[in-house]
Amino acid sequence: MSRSFTDLYVEVLQHYATQMQNLDEGKFEEYAQTFTENGEFQHTPGRPPAVGRQQIVEELHEFHRRFEDDPVQRRHWFDQVAVSADPDGAIRVSYYCLVVTTRPGQRVPQIAPSCTVRDVLVDEGGVLRNHSRVVDHDFVR
Amino acid sequence: MSRSFTDLYVEVLQHYATQMQNLDEGKFEEYAQTFTENGEFQHTPGRPPAVGRQQIVEELHEFHRRFEDDPVQRRHWFDQVAVSADPDGAIRVSYYCLVVTTRPGQRVPQIAPSCTVRDVLVDEGGVLRNHSRVVDHDFVR
Amino acid sequence: MSRSFTDLYVEVLQHYATQMQNLDEGKFEEYAQTFTENGEFQHTPGRPPAVGRQQIVEELHEFHRRFEDDPVQRRHWFDQVAVSADPDGAIRVSYYCLVVTTRPGQRVPQIAPSCTVRDVLVDEGGVLRNHSRVVDHDFVR
Repeated sequence: MSRSFTDLYVEVLQHYATQMQNLDEGKFEEYAQTFTENGEFQHTPGRPPAVGRQQIVEELHEFHRRFEDDPVQRRHWFDQVAVSADPDGAIRVSYYCLVVTTRPGQRVPQIAPSCTVRDVLVDEGGVLRNHSRVVDHDFVR
Repeated sequence: MSRSFTDLYVEVLQHYATQMQNLDEGKFEEYAQTFTENGEFQHTPGRPPAVGRQQIVEELHEFHRRFEDDPVQRRHWFDQVAVSADPDGAIRVSYYCLVVTTRPGQRVPQIAPSCTVRDVLVDEGGVLRNHSRVVDHDFVR
Repeated sequence: MSRSFTDLYVEVLQHYATQMQNLDEGKFEEYAQTFTENGEFQHTPGRPPAVGRQQIVEELHEFHRRFEDDPVQRRHWFDQVAVSADPDGAIRVSYYCLVVTTRPGQRVPQIAPSCTVRDVLVDEGGVLRNHSRVVDHDFVR
């Protein structure tokens, strides 16, 4: 599919907004659907990636177990989104991420860690999906 | 008016940038003008909305009275802006908001609370305006 | 060059994303290349601007000397980007900026100061470059 860079850039922003609102509302199945069927998601440096939608959902349930006795509302913020379209159709995106975590009764959220993210997106019949996502935390290698 | 989704999305971002820079500079009249004549603005959960431009201006003066003896520079940050255009012309937007508050002599601002916002925008002769804005604070219902 | 407002707005976002990722990775030469040959960069209120690419690079090396014994990863976040195109071709952009600073072993970054920035961009053969950048810090004049 040929779309202009402008159209692509805006689609990427909209893809992220709906994807991350779903994740932050705990809709893990919907989040996994924004990956390709064999998509790879590595959210923590040094941890092997989850591969495929079922593993992504399981990984998210596993990760969120830490919040079972510690209710939190997390919000992922993205900024400085740089998009580049490869001739082969892959769309490479790099950007910053901060995780905003609010706890009941606390007005001031914790904002941490500061991350960089590299995504490879592909167009599947007009819909953008993540082929991969790799998250790095600043000063954690 | 028919515009592409891409054009609409960018107009929404530009609408927010000018609207919120005006609000944060204390230009309440200009902020109210970015709402429709009978627009509704509910900025605090549990508080009834201000309806119409005059009430919006009054509400903002009333709200900012708390800062009379406590000079602050507030900046509203938005992120993860998801836009959807209804067939009837209404434009529904949901996004995250953080309020950044700097006080004189303090280099580090307070960043709180973490909010989600739902707007309904309408096109009035080529200009986007807020028909409504409802703000929710995380963990405050 | 005549481009639509939508195309221009997206180009501005992409320009900032690549420009600031370069700066935050310490690529000062690449950052300076995003300014015009006689571009002006004033990053700290009250300090005279660096003029031209060589001075910009020198200024950045000078400024970062403070981090020689204090390794940090800084990330510049931008928000509420308002773009206006002058009839004479100059592109005026105003926006918010927060600097996110992570130190080794500290998960929670410092987020400060809260800034506003005013850029004048120009189109040089289809590439956006900064003719000038002026940074203000909230409550510092």
